[in-house]
Amino acid sequence: MSKVITSRSEDYSKWYNDIVVKAGLADHSAVRGCMVIKPYGFAIWEKMKAVLDKKFKDTGHVNAAFPLFIPKSFLSKEADHVEGFAKECAVVTHYRLKNDPDGKGIVVDPDARLEEELIVRPTSETIIWNTYKDWIQSYRDLPILINQWANVVRWEMRTRLFLRTAEFFWQEGHTAHETSEEAVIEARQMLDVYAEFMENYIAVPVIKGVKSPSERFAGAVDTYTTEGMMQDGKALQMGTSHFLGQNFAKAFDCQYQTREGGLEYVWATSWGVSTRLMGALVMAHSDDEGLVLPPALAPIHVVGVPIYNKKTIDRKPELDAVFNKVKEGLGADISFKYDDDDQKRPGFKFAEYELKGVPVRLALGARDLDNGVLEIARRDTGEKASIPIDNAVDYIKDLLDSIQKNLYQKALDFRTSHTTEVNSFDEFKEVLEEKAGFVSAHWDGTEETEAKIKELTKATIRCIPLDNKQEEGKCVYSGKPSKERVLFARAY
Amino acid sequence: MSKVITSRSEDYSKWYNDIVVKAGLADHSAVRGCMVIKPYGFAIWEKMKAVLDKKFKDTGHVNAAFPLFIPKSFLSKEADHVEGFAKECAVVTHYRLKNDPDGKGIVVDPDARLEEELIVRPTSETIIWNTYKDWIQSYRDLPILINQWANVVRWEMRTRLFLRTAEFFWQEGHTAHETSEEAVIEARQMLDVYAEFMENYIAVPVIKGVKSPSERFAGAVDTYTTEGMMQDGKALQMGTSHFLGQNFAKAFDCQYQTREGGLEYVWATSWGVSTRLMGALVMAHSDDEGLVLPPALAPIHVVGVPIYNKKTIDRKPELDAVFNKVKEGLGADISFKYDDDDQKRPGFKFAEYELKGVPVRLALGARDLDNGVLEIARRDTGEKASIPIDNAVDYIKDLLDSIQKNLYQKALDFRTSHTTEVNSFDEFKEVLEEKAGFVSAHWDGTEETEAKIKELTKATIRCIPLDNKQEEGKCVYSGKPSKERVLFARAY
Repeated sequence: MSKVITSRSEDYSKWYNDIVVKAGLADHSAVRGCMVIKPYGFAIWEKMKAVLDKKFKDTGHVNAAFPLFIPKSFLSKEADHVEGFAKECAVVTHYRLKNDPDGKGIVVDPDARLEEELIVRPTSETIIWNTYKDWIQSYRDLPILINQWANVVRWEMRTRLFLRTAEFFWQEGHTAHETSEEAVIEARQMLDVYAEFMENYIAVPVIKGVKSPSERFAGAVDTYTTEGMMQDGKALQMGTSHFLGQNFAKAFDCQYQTREGGLEYVWATSWGVSTRLMGALVMAHSDDEGLVLPPALAPIHVVGVPIYNKKTIDRKPELDAVFNKVKEGLGADISFKYDDDDQKRPGFKFAEYELKGVPVRLALGARDLDNGVLEIARRDTGEKASIPIDNAVDYIKDLLDSIQKNLYQKALDFRTSHTTEVNSFDEFKEVLEEKAGFVSAHWDGTEETEAKIKELTKATIRCIPLDNKQEEGKCVYSGKPSKERVLFARAY
Repeated sequence: MSKVITSRSEDYSKWYNDIVVKAGLADHSAVRGCMVIKPYGFAIWEKMKAVLDKKFKDTGHVNAAFPLFIPKSFLSKEADHVEGFAKECAVVTHYRLKNDPDGKGIVVDPDARLEEELIVRPTSETIIWNTYKDWIQSYRDLPILINQWANVVRWEMRTRLFLRTAEFFWQEGHTAHETSEEAVIEARQMLDVYAEFMENYIAVPVIKGVKSPSERFAGAVDTYTTEGMMQDGKALQMGTSHFLGQNFAKAFDCQYQTREGGLEYVWATSWGVSTRLMGALVMAHSDDEGLVLPPALAPIHVVGVPIYNKKTIDRKPELDAVFNKVKEGLGADISFKYDDDDQKRPGFKFAEYELKGVPVRLALGARDLDNGVLEIARRDTGEKASIPIDNAVDYIKDLLDSIQKNLYQKALDFRTSHTTEVNSFDEFKEVLEEKAGFVSAHWDGTEETEAKIKELTKATIRCIPLDNKQEEGKCVYSGKPSKERVLFARAY
């Protein structure tokens, strides 16, 4: 198999796209900005969904489904929301097609114009709060803890597979509460759920923090975020959880009778992660040979490749038997694929499973049989070892754990070495240019300074970390006093 | 709790809608024709999805995701398909909104008109075959066995929750094969998978058959169907599986290199079931007290209600202990809900769980404690029994099996008694009017007769059963010779 992946050093963007396409995760479709998620990529997304869905249910949430379409007027009910979301949307204006009177295919029927245009949901706060207002009368109806798995559409001009597509897949939690405190606790709880998933499954360490006002979700009082660091030193916002205050309840007139008999607006949160996580998974761990998957999310954990030729083909049943024994020993929780397709050479298979990021590869030939050993290769480091066949199952189980931990540790080390405290704007720019990563700097807290820094460096405030230490300092740009550092980075 | 459900005899349609809304399954939304699937309804749909998804995977299929949008021109590539599908669709014409220059909310930006309109998918054959043509070069790339779980939109003028909504949820399998035979086997296999699910989980017996040409899916060579019978004697098409021949491969120019080195168009199937199954579930089993759920799909299998008052409240810990023991005995696979909410009276709870169709209800008071018995009520028949507490777990397990079987048997008996062979058109009309159900009659095989019968009686050919016996006869309408009976019915 010839070299199929552009190297990171040659062209990082192309490297990323090559892996997504050539490892069979996703591809561009005939519809501008919309992707096709291919079976191998979808199997990973299904694993992500299953783990997250269980975590949501374990924290008391239930699933439901709300409409794909939102009446145009709903978007303008919450003042900030309309500014943030009502722009790049797919707009449905008609509900019927007809045969072209000129006989050339079909045309939109001009008589079938909708009275009010429908927007394909870019997010569902408005349609959901318009529904909740009918469901909530009293404190007895609270809390509502609902999640939906859905597709949403935001008309992006520049798209990248998984990271930024017009249609993408996500989950959006929408909760309703009696008190501000309860809603904040919910928003923070879901941030913790996300971070735990990102670190223990995707193997990407994340900084939990709060967004600066200008980076907040449109309509939120506070936006909490989980920020990851990719191999090119750019940050990726991996998931957000919003404390919405009473903004949407007020916009949709959703009040409840309190325990004391009064009337109050309901408190809200919303929180979501999307197929963007697939992009994080690819970018955080992969190398110039292809995808590298953490075992916790790999559709295939172990692949077995028998090595034989015309001379040794009579030993094939012995090879089969060893692989079968290993497969049984690994059990149902470890997905084992045996590839004895005789149309492909072992070297071709090795390259293919390397490209697809299968964590562990086993190879076994006649000579290994005679020596009673199995060749076990780990995808993350490329290391190979000859292991006595009788010890193989235990060795592989340990190896899978070790790969999962190693990927996380490697990503953590990378982030640590790419997080730099700076104390002057020159230093700020120099670090961004020469090293990239997170830049920890004092900021005067004004939107003007934030905007100016972004304009000059393309770096944005990723977050104010939740566990931030308080320290007196001076804004790296304006020199005005500041009480804590914030994290800047260039970001996806 | 006052009577909340309209009775079947009073108004069957209203009865159905009442159950769907009041049992908390679904509701109408602010968007015309689109529903909100509420948590309790969605939990049932999730169970359906989980069972079906496993069956699809066990038969070798994998999941993937294709775009929500289809370029308008794609719809007209397959001649029959455009006739059947290109009509009532949601059409996206613009990709941006902007602030109203007059300051009144937002308007569609006239400068953001799409060059080619996008259709919200009513089904995905066209976009998928446009993708498959890039994936398939040789017989080595076949078969492709892909399913997707998706939302689709068909602009229905008259909608009914679950049965006919503008947006609905479904799965659509799309497979590609080397030979016609293999594709037919696949289409028939999936029909069997559907029928097995409908009978063993939804507890609705189905007739497997093939559609007459005029009732075929637009673009299919043969449409296989599973037809169920509802309590009002109307048929419901519950799922279909299509042998598409080479129609879509030809429309999208998808050829493959054969084993012999030639070039041939690929053979195709598609198959789907939708949230319509939720409608079947409701209509087949429910009664005038509310929903009746087969245990195989019930989110809550057993509910426990403690009975106590101010005088007996000191015995509450004993009641808790018995229920807790029963819950533990039932194990993780049987979902038990303990409702000791002291804000609601037992009678209110009984009515609520009856409305929600929980298969088994347990009640226990101080006197029962003294007698060592538990009151166990089954939802399907309403029967109650006092069972020694020590035998309760085994009794409940058996009861759940028995309820599942009973619902199926009841539906089967109803269908049997509502399937009538007729030999004259007068008899045909009389049976339809007075008894409804399936009418088994000879048909001359022409579209004209079929259309005429539909016009005169509103009955359509539901299918030609797969296991149909061959018998000479005369068409019930035209008197022309016929070789087999077909099944007519009025249908949803």
